[in-house]
Formats: sequence, structure tokens, C-alpha cells
Amino acid sequence: MSEQKERIAVVGGTGALGNALALRLARAGHDVIIGSRDAAKADAAANALNAAVGRVAVTAQPNRAAAQAGDIVILAVPYAAQRATIEEIRDALPGKILVDATAPLVPPQVSRVQLPDGGSAVAAIQVLLGTSVRVVSAFQNVSAPKLASAERIDCDVLVCADDRAARDRVIALAGAIGLRGIDAGPIANSAAAEALTSVLIAINRRYKVPGSGIRIVGIDAQ
Amino acid sequence: MSEQKERIAVVGGTGALGNALALRLARAGHDVIIGSRDAAKADAAANALNAAVGRVAVTAQPNRAAAQAGDIVILAVPYAAQRATIEEIRDALPGKILVDATAPLVPPQVSRVQLPDGGSAVAAIQVLLGTSVRVVSAFQNVSAPKLASAERIDCDVLVCADDRAARDRVIALAGAIGLRGIDAGPIANSAAAEALTSVLIAINRRYKVPGSGIRIVGIDAQ
Repeated sequence: MSEQKERIAVVGGTGALGNALALRLARAGHDVIIGSRDAAKADAAANALNAAVGRVAVTAQPNRAAAQAGDIVILAVPYAAQRATIEEIRDALPGKILVDATAPLVPPQVSRVQLPDGGSAVAAIQVLLGTSVRVVSAFQNVSAPKLASAERIDCDVLVCADDRAARDRVIALAGAIGLRGIDAGPIANSAAAEALTSVLIAINRRYKVPGSGIRIVGIDAQ
Repeated sequence: MSEQKERIAVVGGTGALGNALALRLARAGHDVIIGSRDAAKADAAANALNAAVGRVAVTAQPNRAAAQAGDIVILAVPYAAQRATIEEIRDALPGKILVDATAPLVPPQVSRVQLPDGGSAVAAIQVLLGTSVRVVSAFQNVSAPKLASAERIDCDVLVCADDRAARDRVIALAGAIGLRGIDAGPIANSAAAEALTSVLIAINRRYKVPGSGIRIVGIDAQ
């Protein structure tokens, strides 16, 4: 699967995480459509990404058009914008995989776990969208600056979804951009990845490091 | 701190995790009091532990007497018994550190994250007991069979508490038994460790391994 060229929409593609994911996906040979609410900003981001990659791999669209154009849609927006953005793009999602990278950070205490009622912010989106969309949780625990660099990243990606084929596809996508995806079970298990985001921020502050991460040990999976 | 001999109560000391913690703590030179509801079982467990350690390091008591005898009290009981056991021992806890290793597993779906309302089962105990007891969350993500063996364990321990000195003391305790404790922030952050327990069970099943674990990467702490 990681060998196959896919059309991947990154909604929130001008944000730090979305932009870094778009860069790595484009470098891996995929066609990327970055979505944004701000057309000028999206155009500038796409131009910068194409310059970095050395080919025209990235185009810019409004969020909804980007979601329509993608075979897979990645959502990488702040928690406060998650619901509104989903409402904006939901018509484009049936039949697709939606990769939701949301971590429910509640400023100003972003280093304190504050999960929403029910546990997982991403599982709530699966409930909202129903079974016509396969929601996959991933990328909550990877440092955006590290992802934006060309360096090797020492960090695993917990991948949660109720559909195993969708999990496997996103694990392959993670592998294509240099991250080890781990099958972490059903979408409810996204609560662990979401909570870990705040824990890693706490660890970054406590140990004065720029981007701590997690590794799963005791398995052989690549 | 890890050099100092302490009196440590392990309530639920005849269970798999409690027994393994008692073994490692006794081997590290601490005096351990294992608490149980079953006196005969507790006596047998203490005798077996002393034989394994090669000195009289472990004694057995009913849960409440064990908690009274310990300078630090570790709670290692199933989630279903957490509240009742806390009520049983709470008179013995003021002024002490309570290390709660509870993960809110809800059988039969123990590989599915099912956090209680509010997020963390351990943070709820801190609210219940009030500030006279310093509750520390730890040891949710370590494999009991691996802990019961003499082997080196490739796994970190997320240590959460609202009191930093209490966190540091439990990090030292983890270090004394061969585990790297990580300061993971306030007690609310225990939700991440608790959710990870189910994720690790899911990973064990998916990858057919006996005891996966987590490592924090990108920090230098020992």
C-alpha cells in the first residue's frame, strides 16, 4: 500500500502538523491537496511545499474542495476547530477514510489531560459521522517540527479505528513517511493517544526537551 | 531516595502485579508488608517471597493493618475492587503517599479503553481522599510476569501526582526495582497511563506478544 500513489487531502494543511504531514506525504510520492480557510495562505503553503519537494505535488483548495478531491482525508486542525471543520467537510466524506489527528488540548493547561466526556475526541467524530466514514485516529504524538525536518523520527504512531483495513492503510501511510504505525485497536482507544499528547507536553517542559515521543516496546512489527 | 530502606505496604499483594512489585521491592532492600483479604493466602505469599529473596523481608497483614504499617502504600487491586479497598484502608492513609496502580479495565472488553467519567480512575481517588493523602499514579503499564522475573524490563513507568515531591519519591522507587520512572505531570494525566493499559492489551493480542510496553523517547532522564 505504501508503494501506491494516493490523493491525500490535508485539511488544516497550513497549520504546523498539517503542513509537516503534507511535506512528508509529498516527498513519499503522494499527491497532496492542502485545505485551508485562507486561500492566499494555502496557495503560499503549497508553493513552498512544491519548492521543497522539487515537483508539483501539492495543490491548495478550500477545506471542502480539498476533502472532495482526496481519496483519504487527514484532519489536522486545533481541537477548538474540530467540530466546525468536520461539519464543513462532512458531505465529502462518505466512503472515505478520515484520519483525525485531533488531540483535545484545552488551553491554557495544555500539559494537563482534559479528555472530553466519553473519553476520545476522535471517537466522538466516528459517532457523529456514522459508519459510512471510516474514522482513523493517528499522528497525535509526533512532533510537528521533527516531522517538518528531514531527520529520522524516533517515535511510533498509535493507529486506532474500528475497521481493521482502514487501520492497516494508515499504518502503511505512516510507514511511507518514516514513522512506525502501531495497530492500537478500536477507535475508543484513541483516548490513550489523545491523553498522551498532554503528557508529552508535560514531559517536554519537565525535562526541557523539544519533542519527546513514545515507542512501543516488546513487539517485532515494523 | 532509592538508597533508603522504606516500609512499603502492598495492598493487593497476593495479586499478580502486587506480588511482583513486592518481590522486586524486597529484592531492592525494602521492608514490605503485603495486605490481603485472605490471611492464609497472604501468609503463603509472604513465605514464598521471603524464600525467593533469601531473607525475611516480607510480612503479611490484613489490608488495613498493612496500610497502617507502611510508610508508603501501594494499591494493586482490580478496578472493580478499587473503591471498596480504598474505603477499607482510608483511615490509615492521611500523611502518606498512596501509589495507585489501578487501570480501569472493564471486562470482558479489557482491550478497549473505557475510562470512567472524569477520565482517570486514580485522579478520582485523589478527589475522594482529599489533600491529606498524596496520591501517585504508577505501574499501570508494566507486565506483571516480566516484573515477577529477574530479567531486565524494557518499559517506562509514567508517574503522575499533583505533588512533585511525591512524584520524585515514586520515580526513585521505580528506579530501585529496575524501571525508569517518568515524571508525567499532575494526577489528571494518569488517564493516559490508564488508557494505555487497554491499548497494550490490544497490542499484545494483535502482535501476538506476551507483554508489550512503552518507552518515552527524546529525553535524557534515567
